[in-house]
Amino acid sequence: MQPSLFELEQHNAFIRRHIGPRVQDVAAMLAAVGAASLDDLITQTLPSNIINQQPLGIGDSRTEVEALAYLKSLAQQNRVYKSYIGMGYHDTHVPLVIQRNVLENPGWYTAYTPYQPEIAQGRLEALLNFQQLTQDLTGLDLASASLLDEATAAAEAMALAKRVSKNKASNLFFIAADVHPQTIDVVQERAAHYGFEILVAPIEAVLEQSVFGALFQYPATSGEIQNLSPFISHVQAKQGIACVAADILSLVLLTPPGELGADVVLGNAQRFGVPMGYGGPHAAFFATRDQYKRSLPGRIIGVSKDSRGKPALRMAMQTREQHIRREKANSNICTAQVLLANMSSFYVVYHGPKGLKRIAERVHRLTSILALGLTQQGLTLKHDTWFDTLTILTTKAEKDAIIGRAEAAGVNLRTDLDAALGVSLSETTRREEVQQLFTIFLGEGHGLDISELDSQISLSSSSAIPAELQRTSAILSHPVFNRYHSETEMLRYIHQLEMKDLALNTSMIALGSCTMKLNATAEMVPIGWPELNQLHPFAPLNQTQGYQQILSELSEWLANITGYDAVCLQPNSGAQGEYAGLLAIKKYHASQGETQRDICLIPSSAHGTNPASAQMASMKVIVVACDKQGNVDVSDLKAKAAEAGEQLSCIMITYPSTHGVYEENIREICALIHQHGGQVYMDGANMNAQVGLTSPGFIGADVSHLNLHKTFAIPHGGGGPGMGPIGVKAHLAPFVAGHTLIKTTAESRDNGAVSAAPFGSASILTISWMYMALLGDEGLKRASQVAILNANYLMTCLAEDYSILYTGRNNRVAHECIVDVRPLKGSSGISELDIAKRLNDFGFHAPTMSFPVAGTLMIEPTESESKAEIDRFIAAMKQIRQEIRLVETGHWTLADNPLVNAPHTQDDVLVADWQHAYSREQAAFPTPEVRRAKFWPSVNRIDDVYGDRNLFCSCLPLDAYQ
Amino acid sequence: MQPSLFELEQHNAFIRRHIGPRVQDVAAMLAAVGAASLDDLITQTLPSNIINQQPLGIGDSRTEVEALAYLKSLAQQNRVYKSYIGMGYHDTHVPLVIQRNVLENPGWYTAYTPYQPEIAQGRLEALLNFQQLTQDLTGLDLASASLLDEATAAAEAMALAKRVSKNKASNLFFIAADVHPQTIDVVQERAAHYGFEILVAPIEAVLEQSVFGALFQYPATSGEIQNLSPFISHVQAKQGIACVAADILSLVLLTPPGELGADVVLGNAQRFGVPMGYGGPHAAFFATRDQYKRSLPGRIIGVSKDSRGKPALRMAMQTREQHIRREKANSNICTAQVLLANMSSFYVVYHGPKGLKRIAERVHRLTSILALGLTQQGLTLKHDTWFDTLTILTTKAEKDAIIGRAEAAGVNLRTDLDAALGVSLSETTRREEVQQLFTIFLGEGHGLDISELDSQISLSSSSAIPAELQRTSAILSHPVFNRYHSETEMLRYIHQLEMKDLALNTSMIALGSCTMKLNATAEMVPIGWPELNQLHPFAPLNQTQGYQQILSELSEWLANITGYDAVCLQPNSGAQGEYAGLLAIKKYHASQGETQRDICLIPSSAHGTNPASAQMASMKVIVVACDKQGNVDVSDLKAKAAEAGEQLSCIMITYPSTHGVYEENIREICALIHQHGGQVYMDGANMNAQVGLTSPGFIGADVSHLNLHKTFAIPHGGGGPGMGPIGVKAHLAPFVAGHTLIKTTAESRDNGAVSAAPFGSASILTISWMYMALLGDEGLKRASQVAILNANYLMTCLAEDYSILYTGRNNRVAHECIVDVRPLKGSSGISELDIAKRLNDFGFHAPTMSFPVAGTLMIEPTESESKAEIDRFIAAMKQIRQEIRLVETGHWTLADNPLVNAPHTQDDVLVADWQHAYSREQAAFPTPEVRRAKFWPSVNRIDDVYGDRNLFCSCLPLDAYQ
Repeated sequence: MQPSLFELEQHNAFIRRHIGPRVQDVAAMLAAVGAASLDDLITQTLPSNIINQQPLGIGDSRTEVEALAYLKSLAQQNRVYKSYIGMGYHDTHVPLVIQRNVLENPGWYTAYTPYQPEIAQGRLEALLNFQQLTQDLTGLDLASASLLDEATAAAEAMALAKRVSKNKASNLFFIAADVHPQTIDVVQERAAHYGFEILVAPIEAVLEQSVFGALFQYPATSGEIQNLSPFISHVQAKQGIACVAADILSLVLLTPPGELGADVVLGNAQRFGVPMGYGGPHAAFFATRDQYKRSLPGRIIGVSKDSRGKPALRMAMQTREQHIRREKANSNICTAQVLLANMSSFYVVYHGPKGLKRIAERVHRLTSILALGLTQQGLTLKHDTWFDTLTILTTKAEKDAIIGRAEAAGVNLRTDLDAALGVSLSETTRREEVQQLFTIFLGEGHGLDISELDSQISLSSSSAIPAELQRTSAILSHPVFNRYHSETEMLRYIHQLEMKDLALNTSMIALGSCTMKLNATAEMVPIGWPELNQLHPFAPLNQTQGYQQILSELSEWLANITGYDAVCLQPNSGAQGEYAGLLAIKKYHASQGETQRDICLIPSSAHGTNPASAQMASMKVIVVACDKQGNVDVSDLKAKAAEAGEQLSCIMITYPSTHGVYEENIREICALIHQHGGQVYMDGANMNAQVGLTSPGFIGADVSHLNLHKTFAIPHGGGGPGMGPIGVKAHLAPFVAGHTLIKTTAESRDNGAVSAAPFGSASILTISWMYMALLGDEGLKRASQVAILNANYLMTCLAEDYSILYTGRNNRVAHECIVDVRPLKGSSGISELDIAKRLNDFGFHAPTMSFPVAGTLMIEPTESESKAEIDRFIAAMKQIRQEIRLVETGHWTLADNPLVNAPHTQDDVLVADWQHAYSREQAAFPTPEVRRAKFWPSVNRIDDVYGDRNLFCSCLPLDAYQ
Repeated sequence: MQPSLFELEQHNAFIRRHIGPRVQDVAAMLAAVGAASLDDLITQTLPSNIINQQPLGIGDSRTEVEALAYLKSLAQQNRVYKSYIGMGYHDTHVPLVIQRNVLENPGWYTAYTPYQPEIAQGRLEALLNFQQLTQDLTGLDLASASLLDEATAAAEAMALAKRVSKNKASNLFFIAADVHPQTIDVVQERAAHYGFEILVAPIEAVLEQSVFGALFQYPATSGEIQNLSPFISHVQAKQGIACVAADILSLVLLTPPGELGADVVLGNAQRFGVPMGYGGPHAAFFATRDQYKRSLPGRIIGVSKDSRGKPALRMAMQTREQHIRREKANSNICTAQVLLANMSSFYVVYHGPKGLKRIAERVHRLTSILALGLTQQGLTLKHDTWFDTLTILTTKAEKDAIIGRAEAAGVNLRTDLDAALGVSLSETTRREEVQQLFTIFLGEGHGLDISELDSQISLSSSSAIPAELQRTSAILSHPVFNRYHSETEMLRYIHQLEMKDLALNTSMIALGSCTMKLNATAEMVPIGWPELNQLHPFAPLNQTQGYQQILSELSEWLANITGYDAVCLQPNSGAQGEYAGLLAIKKYHASQGETQRDICLIPSSAHGTNPASAQMASMKVIVVACDKQGNVDVSDLKAKAAEAGEQLSCIMITYPSTHGVYEENIREICALIHQHGGQVYMDGANMNAQVGLTSPGFIGADVSHLNLHKTFAIPHGGGGPGMGPIGVKAHLAPFVAGHTLIKTTAESRDNGAVSAAPFGSASILTISWMYMALLGDEGLKRASQVAILNANYLMTCLAEDYSILYTGRNNRVAHECIVDVRPLKGSSGISELDIAKRLNDFGFHAPTMSFPVAGTLMIEPTESESKAEIDRFIAAMKQIRQEIRLVETGHWTLADNPLVNAPHTQDDVLVADWQHAYSREQAAFPTPEVRRAKFWPSVNRIDDVYGDRNLFCSCLPLDAYQ
């Protein structure tokens, strides 16, 4: 009998594309680890009381064609109106050379966070450019390498202000009433949990206050351009910190806030070449004074030198990262928006100072033409200054009529203002569209002529930018912003940087805890659809029905997978998800009248973001001990929970543990916490070992965040974007994040927001939608099984040469394993860092180093890696072990061997005078396999200490590279 | 006064993106060459009697956004019907990982033809895979690396048959009547000009004939699968050559024609992952017996070894290329379809033998379901065998009704058959669509159920593929087709190959005569639009109104630029354009009753394709001498023209000459030819030096082809696709190519075709449309000016160290210059090949070698290269000259110096025991600049002679690479 048509249709073909090992490989690997089948392996590995045999209920797997066709049909239910809403989000032209060669290039989007700078100099340079342009445009001397969005950046500014302000007497943070409303919302919510007071009032009111910090908007949300100097001076006179949220394009023409005296300048870089994406992702910028560098939130790229003394870039002051110091944390930020920051930095490289100036002038000119036309025809503007935004005063009747005409024309104005309408123009606005705006505001027959209005303005000497606020200082004078203006040069610059970086298109990136799986092209395609990426986040819900359907399906699937009842999609990073989850717990307790519950128990093995998030929610962190198997010490937990008593708010626990094992006691732990009236926050970082096998809700947890950029296939983008939706049990559902402008769920509408946009970085949620739609129940479960198989196979093979730190029942690990390098360090002096860097010589990215345990390497192959690739990695590790033996036996000294000198660059191996105890070929081609496709680290091992001591975070003069 | 809105709108911004030198660079370069302005340079350079001051009439330059929006609006006027037309063109799913990482990746599409194999091993390997899959599927032992389309491949098969057949008595080529009609059309036209007789008749008629060759279709155009063995045997019994045009997907299931005894098997590989594109481009495959290898048309990739004895790939038997031997040419093929062949070869790597089998079986099953349903409901099929195509017999009334229902459903059937309709299914056909076909054929209420029909078939033992024609031999057993089936592995394989190849994203490719300019992303974007790439070439004209408008605008612009009256877009390579142009001339003379005019004068400096094309048109080639400045020797021309007298058909002349200069006498030459009743064919290879400054029509020529892949920005794709439309004066317009199925122009309908598709590779014509729309009159002219400036600047700087072979008036060159290496060869022994390979060490592609003059390098920077890049190239050439001096002075021996040993690989410079007179760093980093972004040749210099003597054109066993 022949196969049926159904079999021939291969609806589950994508499962084979996503999962690395072939059927015969799986058999061989099962044999190697001693399991009869995948099911047998799972039974051996997971505690029996948590295995859930229920299907996920997501449905059958779909082909790429089927899933894309269906998603497209949903996307087409969105109505893409021309947006003049503004409020920090603007249409932009993504330069196509950037779109194709960065946004659509796996060489850029599949890269990991640049923790291994020797193989990441490309994106580090692009990020340094981002910092440089931020400094140039803001007029401040230190900038970070991107934050999540403008609103959270403003909240971070408030936190910085609190830390560094010398006005210790004040607990008040002032927010000018003309700051964007979504920013006010997020800052207020954050302040409430920090315990700060907030005053939102007209800007002049700040002159009556003594505050630790204040936030102004420049230009204001209404479009007005005010001289902020007097307000800044007053805040500073009281030893407060003056923060300014600014429009990045306006800064090309305006006196930068830094020159007006501001201490912090922040904002959204979206309009520099990143689509609005219905809210994100895009990069926020953040700049401050050099003196506050130790308090700067987020990542900062610094220039240091490598072991050959060459300039080399790396992330400076990495204590904010996975190595975040728990007790000192005051921000939980660890994700950045690297891919988007790089798109924006390339946008500036592409246009250069002259190009940007022409764009800013054009936007401003069209705004002035619009203003002139409207006022000539009798309308009244609220302000007589503007850059690109006008507020037009209207009666209720006028407003309705105008909105009606706009709606009919497929145009969105800003409508949330009392007795007024807002219009913000953008880089994409054309003269025909201004003409259309005249008709929308004035009706047919107004007789205005753009060219005529333009000549009136061209001939006039007055300007809507006050004379003292017209920029005089130069911008972007560094060569990098002035030499790549032909497309050919731009293409080559992007390519040159890409070539320095190792991404998933080269080899496995076995980052424990980070789940660097396939980011399939089919999953990435929809983010390029205009129906998805050209929507303003505050577009009315009736225009975004397609998105609502997508988000609703996504939420339902995530609820199924996590065993929860509701999902909130707003948090746009994992850490922000943690924070949002803790707020839900806090509000729940409050709703029960138990506001005293403020103790958060955290096992010592936790991610550093856990305590940081708890502190942001003003919880008291109590650390729970782990036993020597790496599991929570249940007796200590009992004691700590009992001690906390009615103060117990929650536990934050990762499952499988950060040690890569399924703790046997997890149900017991959950029950214990519930017994004491606490809630269980289960960190979703390791969901890749749960999907389809068990779930947080099934196990007994109350809330979790999900790192969609780990388990659910959003690419890491070289260090962001991420997404951290939270799932909650029903009793917590009323307490998830809401939004001041867009009703996200019926229940949450009165809650504050944690992100600027109602659904976070909405556009990339489609990546996770695609991932689940393609794999379906069968594929999602199989992915988890094979992830566990791959990890156990790797562990089994490595155990021949290395000590494995933790295993669970039946000597199994979950989806990752920890290699303990400390014994080798003792016997040879070789450290985990040496092994990590030596792996670069083999063309591999290093695994996670010294997390969660110092002196170890945590390795997670994921289900997407083939047996061939894993074998290649094992061969490298075995070869490295052999090299360590040669140090142990004294064949090589500790001072000169290929491990301590790793990674080796071209410069190293080409020197005329080779002085090492091993050969050049051993250095660069440690196995014959490497020779076939050598990836070269572009700098030698970088001196972090030097860099942190001599912090330099701007673009270097070019001759420094010679 | 402020700039006007119009200035701020920057409608001409793209000009700055396309052209390399900045305004200040242009000034510096003009100063270096001694010209006051660009206009001054042009006046100094071009003969004054050919400068045309008229604007081009293409219009103002447009921004990328404007041009794309307008083109999109045209594209949307196309109606994309589901196509069941078949006839060699089928819908296909382009695997997205291939689409993104090959088709949309400048690393693949901007590469040049792999004449420099040391920096092209990646695409050479992909092409070798294409040859291997062709061999596997056809059952023959030698395959080429792609031809232009199935119809021209069939014509080449006929030519091969004529050359190798021992049936010298016969001048007859047989074509089975059930060959695709467009193939018959092209082969007939070709035969007419070769002077062969053609018999088109039912296949059985061949048994009555003694022929030098015959062409069969397998399966037939009607869908029937016949056992061709008896017909093949008969042809061969008469010492003729049996050629089979085959459907590539069907060969997965059918006994391959090679096993049926065929001598040649050819066809279209389009349905292997290349969109239909309204006709192209896609790759034709061509396989034959090893014994005919010297007659194989087109390129063939062979395995040879490099100077270290490692296996290395390169184009074998390159005499077909630019070095085509004029006197021996019998095919003018020089372009291939590399990018498309590689897409198809990656498609096969992606699916592997099992995946392809499932696809073929699915297509066949759906066809059988359709057949069963239709016959159960009383319709009659013409044949009882099929793979994917059915011919359904109908009355006239039935036919009209069915076509009406199809039209209403947005479905195209094959309608050109008498009393019948054709349906061809494809990889993309879904069961719902078969259900729709039932309704189209049977009307509503037929009650057929796909699953029910499927079970009937699954249970049945009969098959529509005759038992003796069911494939039993294995396919695609080489590891390359069996190891990259997860997307991650596939992505890495594509990336690894890409990394071996130097393309325009790395550095300048200054190929004289090939015009490797920017292929802007905006120009490439439209080929991804479904409205453009999903149309069948024989879709009715009323569905392709958008295309008609685009092609009409394109034709008008090309006519303006060339100074001609009409344009024919059909020829899909430059050489084919030449052939089409010569046919127009030939037919014109015939229309004047002057059939005796058969002499084609060709200057000795001509491209090798010129005489080859002339011979294909059965013209007698008479070579005209050049003087020592490289110009046509006018007195020799006068003599030859006079001698030809009334036999003179035409001259073929390139302008500026292939020597890179504007001949002063060009008007005189044109007049002289016309005086003798001849026509002037002006080869458009060097149009980049004419656009906006002069034109063939203005100068006095009658017909030209245009290499759209040179002057008009279609990327070279690593060696194809190209496009070669021809422009003609009005008197030749009635004689351009027509098409048997689609009316291309009113005048040409009765002419034969030169390509399978009516408008050639229509989809990529949009690239040239975009190029012209973006640049407009101003930009196109400036591009020519700057191309000339760049060439003269380069020449001026190089002249300090090298001898420049030819210059024109005022010591100027046109858009390229020839460096004479012969004096250096004399003084040092260093050859142009050594310099070319040494440039690889600097990260540069070599210029054109030994064309048009042996012992030289022809360099063409194009307008897209920046001054910085040109300066980098000049610095490399100066450094090389310095190295040559060290050989001249005896500091280095001729046997051991960095030139003769170039290019240097990683293996070279890492050996423990360095034996050379120069250092490793001198070898790999000849200038400090190279160190910053080193591109490594992946093999050493390749031994061509060894490869040609030991021709091996299949994939190597993997261990050969160890």
